[in-house]
Amino acid sequence: MRAATIRDGEVLVEEHPDPEPGVGQVLVGVRGAGLNGADMMQLRGRYPAPPGSSPDIPGLELAGVVEALGPQAVRFEVGDRVMGIAGGGGQAELAVVHERQLMRVPDAVEFPDAGGLPEVFTTAHDAIFTQGRLRPGERLLVQGAAGGVGTAAVQLALAAGAHVTASVRNPDLRGGVAKLGAHEVIDPEGFVDYGPFDVVLELVGAPNLGGDLKALAINGRIVVIGVAAGAKAELNLLALMGKRARIMASTLRARPLEEKAATARAMEREVLPFFERGDVRVPVAKTYALNDVASAYEHFAGGGKLGKILLTF
Amino acid sequence: MRAATIRDGEVLVEEHPDPEPGVGQVLVGVRGAGLNGADMMQLRGRYPAPPGSSPDIPGLELAGVVEALGPQAVRFEVGDRVMGIAGGGGQAELAVVHERQLMRVPDAVEFPDAGGLPEVFTTAHDAIFTQGRLRPGERLLVQGAAGGVGTAAVQLALAAGAHVTASVRNPDLRGGVAKLGAHEVIDPEGFVDYGPFDVVLELVGAPNLGGDLKALAINGRIVVIGVAAGAKAELNLLALMGKRARIMASTLRARPLEEKAATARAMEREVLPFFERGDVRVPVAKTYALNDVASAYEHFAGGGKLGKILLTF
Repeated sequence: MRAATIRDGEVLVEEHPDPEPGVGQVLVGVRGAGLNGADMMQLRGRYPAPPGSSPDIPGLELAGVVEALGPQAVRFEVGDRVMGIAGGGGQAELAVVHERQLMRVPDAVEFPDAGGLPEVFTTAHDAIFTQGRLRPGERLLVQGAAGGVGTAAVQLALAAGAHVTASVRNPDLRGGVAKLGAHEVIDPEGFVDYGPFDVVLELVGAPNLGGDLKALAINGRIVVIGVAAGAKAELNLLALMGKRARIMASTLRARPLEEKAATARAMEREVLPFFERGDVRVPVAKTYALNDVASAYEHFAGGGKLGKILLTF
Repeated sequence: MRAATIRDGEVLVEEHPDPEPGVGQVLVGVRGAGLNGADMMQLRGRYPAPPGSSPDIPGLELAGVVEALGPQAVRFEVGDRVMGIAGGGGQAELAVVHERQLMRVPDAVEFPDAGGLPEVFTTAHDAIFTQGRLRPGERLLVQGAAGGVGTAAVQLALAAGAHVTASVRNPDLRGGVAKLGAHEVIDPEGFVDYGPFDVVLELVGAPNLGGDLKALAINGRIVVIGVAAGAKAELNLLALMGKRARIMASTLRARPLEEKAATARAMEREVLPFFERGDVRVPVAKTYALNDVASAYEHFAGGGKLGKILLTF
């Protein structure tokens, strides 16, 4: 098979042996695979793939058609449309994924778009609902709402009946976020004035934390899953006590199989119905053929996009 | 009635009109009332009593005998032994408390000791179980374990099957904490080496936070409810993400009636059975008669004690 391959800090296309599905695994003929920040970090040598994943084929998420089943794999049949998060190796013509990490692709979602769904929607759902416990009628601030996770979070929170304020640094991207339905799309300067918020999804990092806490409602939750703008924050514990608040932080990739599988089940219950009904969609910035993988990575690294960058096969 | 009374930065005994129980309230003939840090702050003018509480009679907790019932009060009968947290006014011969904030005193607990039970055990239970979700078999670090909340937390966590490490700055108090059954009683210097901990109960403040995070297990929780040593902390958000951890902070006193009542129900279910069985007790440093209230406050302010300082009536 052909696959995106990391060689000496560059990404190119190479031939690899076809993978074979092991116990409980499914061989997927990939039709779409999204790019993510972790791929960029892996390219720069700063985020090696976890044990058990291909060390040189990037790709945390994919969608495609079931080509074959490993022993004891019972959830799907050959020909089923599936998608999911993988430890790596998703940006290839073929990928093996444990069946407990796969979900059926909703009828309303096409290839290759489905390949850009799992990572950002699972991350957003886990952060704002499983961690942050956002409730209908509550107020959510998404800090850095134009990225993949941000646009997913805005849509999911709206579909779940929350009031959504979206901060977007790049003025060119604010219109696109507004089209997703956010109640307010704001410049990050002065975001505190738009509070109080029950949940803040922090995708930017430490420079926001003081303001996040000021803008937080009593019993509020700050969920940190991105720190591109810096990781070292000052925190006033007395203010945190006064708000009876909590700061939670997480990553998906490092979790063990059973926890990742649990996020897939939560997606099936709580997110995929929104896609079936057409309430939520995968925003796609651009799709590239595998042969143009270098351009796809360049586009991703350049920023300034709204929505996912996808590879198609 | 006679009551401890704050006048111009001093605490003395004054006559006050007898309080009358309103709708849903109970008039309690107080037999024991504990001193707490909030009383000291109120004495220094830094922590005014919340609306609806006596502005000049301190006392957040009390135990005694039901003297009379207000309209629609149905949970208790005259003569019942009761205890609970009040917004203030507990250090008096008579106090009115809403019946939903009162609990029956376990048979195994005497007066005046019961008057020192509600505040610290409710605070400790809420922090380590309701907030921190400590589970049997998990490892708890109590930072500042010799105080009222600390000794309560050590006992409750042991009774619930956790492994307990207790840090105590004052060497003279370590033996007393060890007698409560803590698995390790340690000097705060070097506490990081005793990790990883699933839950850290932080009763000291900001200087510990960096170490708390270093010593935390994956999926760990830091619960901050005391900041006497400082409130401004540095927080590495990337480290928090790597641990998939959370920092939560809280106070009891500012919560609305229904939340305080919920903590009393949680105490009845999850804490009072330990007292009935004799697994847990109220550590008492010293009991003072109401006439000696000034000495009681002086003793509390001086520190260096293990367990509660109580007033008796």
